[in-house]
Amino acid sequence: MANKVSTKPPSGMRDFLPTDLARRRYVIERVREVYERYGFVPLETPCIENLDVLTGKYGEDEKLIYRILHRGETLQRVLTGDASALDADALSDQALRYDLTVPLARVVAQYGELPKYFKRYQIQPVWRADRPGKGRFREFYQCDVDITGTESLLAEAEVCAAACEVLGGLGFGDYVLGVNHRELLRALIRAAGIDPSHEGTALVAVDKLDKIGRDGVLDELEQRGISRTCGEALLGLLDRDPAESNADTLASLRPRLDAAGGKALDDLTELLALLESTAAGPRAKLRPQLARGLSYYTGPIFEISVVDLGSSIAGGGRYDGLVGMFGKQQVPAVGLSLGLERILVVMAERGMYPAELACGPQLLLCWHKVSDTAALATAQKLRAQGIRVELFPEPAKLAKQIQYATHPGVAAPWVGILGEEELAAEQITLKHLESGDQSTVALTEASTHVRSR
Amino acid sequence: MANKVSTKPPSGMRDFLPTDLARRRYVIERVREVYERYGFVPLETPCIENLDVLTGKYGEDEKLIYRILHRGETLQRVLTGDASALDADALSDQALRYDLTVPLARVVAQYGELPKYFKRYQIQPVWRADRPGKGRFREFYQCDVDITGTESLLAEAEVCAAACEVLGGLGFGDYVLGVNHRELLRALIRAAGIDPSHEGTALVAVDKLDKIGRDGVLDELEQRGISRTCGEALLGLLDRDPAESNADTLASLRPRLDAAGGKALDDLTELLALLESTAAGPRAKLRPQLARGLSYYTGPIFEISVVDLGSSIAGGGRYDGLVGMFGKQQVPAVGLSLGLERILVVMAERGMYPAELACGPQLLLCWHKVSDTAALATAQKLRAQGIRVELFPEPAKLAKQIQYATHPGVAAPWVGILGEEELAAEQITLKHLESGDQSTVALTEASTHVRSR
Repeated sequence: MANKVSTKPPSGMRDFLPTDLARRRYVIERVREVYERYGFVPLETPCIENLDVLTGKYGEDEKLIYRILHRGETLQRVLTGDASALDADALSDQALRYDLTVPLARVVAQYGELPKYFKRYQIQPVWRADRPGKGRFREFYQCDVDITGTESLLAEAEVCAAACEVLGGLGFGDYVLGVNHRELLRALIRAAGIDPSHEGTALVAVDKLDKIGRDGVLDELEQRGISRTCGEALLGLLDRDPAESNADTLASLRPRLDAAGGKALDDLTELLALLESTAAGPRAKLRPQLARGLSYYTGPIFEISVVDLGSSIAGGGRYDGLVGMFGKQQVPAVGLSLGLERILVVMAERGMYPAELACGPQLLLCWHKVSDTAALATAQKLRAQGIRVELFPEPAKLAKQIQYATHPGVAAPWVGILGEEELAAEQITLKHLESGDQSTVALTEASTHVRSR
Repeated sequence: MANKVSTKPPSGMRDFLPTDLARRRYVIERVREVYERYGFVPLETPCIENLDVLTGKYGEDEKLIYRILHRGETLQRVLTGDASALDADALSDQALRYDLTVPLARVVAQYGELPKYFKRYQIQPVWRADRPGKGRFREFYQCDVDITGTESLLAEAEVCAAACEVLGGLGFGDYVLGVNHRELLRALIRAAGIDPSHEGTALVAVDKLDKIGRDGVLDELEQRGISRTCGEALLGLLDRDPAESNADTLASLRPRLDAAGGKALDDLTELLALLESTAAGPRAKLRPQLARGLSYYTGPIFEISVVDLGSSIAGGGRYDGLVGMFGKQQVPAVGLSLGLERILVVMAERGMYPAELACGPQLLLCWHKVSDTAALATAQKLRAQGIRVELFPEPAKLAKQIQYATHPGVAAPWVGILGEEELAAEQITLKHLESGDQSTVALTEASTHVRSR
């Protein structure tokens, strides 16, 4: 049966071995604790969505969606039909989830029993056939919080506050919460004298300011039909001195804005004031050049970044039109997504994990000159005391068994030794590997002894 | 933008709303606690596997695998090639995970750094394009424990013991752990005078005994070329009186077996003895007709069932050949998979969940005649005390806000009321909704007050 099948996971995807998972679980449980303390409740949706739920939501990134191939008779019918009509749409009508926001919008449109203000969090993987990179994978987890049903800026403030409290709790002290508003951006584009028909083009170019610099943006704007003069006017408004205070940015932009832009600036002023009483307050920075790629945002937008990564570790915003795209009621909504993988990458590089994140066995039970039945019965008694016990599975020399406890993949701090004498006396010899301390105690006292260190 | 997109999840798949998830999490956390106490460590693998990892492992069920359609240039190249050569294999080379056992075998073949005896658990969804039914879905979770690297029957005993301890802890008292051995089955087929070339056919028919009865099995055997006489001889060996003790079954089969069958019976005798010191002991039942469908089993096999369900709630066995199918080393292995969905279905029908499984807010903060900034700042102070707080997001009449706490999707046991007086005095009015008790306390005392009930 032997063949040459690769045993690696698919490109851009990962196996998580126990030590990886201990770190992932540490972060996920802290995210969940904060989200729940903020009153968010959990939601999970299928990994597979009907394709028409996803189409028309992600702009040109739609090509990155993983599609499920038709099966059985459906596939046969398609393949025996008109070969010239074959394309991805003919061959599939389901796909893997691309983000957690569109499934939430579908859920809100579907379930009338949800409360008016649905505060949900969702921690699940998503799939994008993107080029893999640092902290960027094809299967990766997002940790989303969203509030639907209200246009109140308290919703923006709560999702930002929750995300910042998560980051603070994990030990991040140097991140920036960039804040902007889609309507402010549009007003600034108008103020720069750029024709509204070029708005989308301008947004895409501006979004690259951090990556390609002023000249790069000006070149791109010019190639797309926006004059150097207008481009420079736009950058004059957007590209702020990083040391400028939020108050100074607000004051300097105010005179340049029309009514819609002024309203957006009012929103941002209030949002910044709301954030003052939260963990997000000292981290919030008005960044007029922030554009965020996704086409569904309609109001305030946010992005959290750290200097270590060229990309953001979180992003979000208001998307009042998305739920309505399912053809039912319009429902306003705002949300923020923490990128778990990028947080994990930065935490690993900075050594931010606690030293003790064990989920492995606390004790390896070694046995000699007793039956396997006696060994298993003793393991059961130790487990009944709440100790995480691995039982050495085969007869072997005692030294070899004890040595096995030190394998990095086992890393049991304790060894329990069961021999004829211990068995007869209902005792166990407990050896603490790091200190070398060893003592023989009553079996019923084992957990007290193990927990005493 | 409005269109007629269905907002239901795909057929056979489900959205899990917060109350569903509270139940799922309750069970999953109990499974995890027991598995870890038994010394198993967590593993997670990608939802997508390269197709050649999955092919040749599941027999005819392979057609139920969900495949990922090629994308971009690869898809274009295939579609513009020879149309007559188009089939599922030409259109895809990745697929969704079908179970958790084959990915484990891949992982064991891939990572040399794993310990020799890899005791892993894995709780993740799998996908099968099967006909949906009671407790049977197209996306569903499995909770697997496996031990690789040993031929010791202690491994069989440990996976069975862990699964039974999970079920006992969840409140199941009436399940049966059916135990059999592939080599015993093969020996009994020989003992019935059936030609070894018909072994596979006979196994498939025997597996249906519970569903189609004796006559059904005899008919199917006859249709497949096994005489009525041989079929009756086989059923005479396999179809035991349910009241027969394990010892009597062992004793009655022993004289009918050749050497290989005798060895299998020795294994089962030892396994049943080992299980005596575990939670599995009183539930274990030797069932010679148990066949288990999957082609990769090589030794003892198990199945856990309850009377409520026509299908099993867990299954497993020894599969010493699977890791070696990846063309590297042979590694013996044994495992057991708990079917989360079926457990949940039975628990719901029997009312086995604790009454209190809340993860929603403990307190809805209502506010009137104060600013939204003051409301948010107060919510933050309550959250800093560890209370799960939902903040009413908009100005509204107080009665309407309080009413919202009783929505089934909010179900907050407490309401906090913040008015001008409370704000000035740094107090909060706490109302316990069920009792109607209400008192105004110092804001700093809120969590003490909430926890006192």
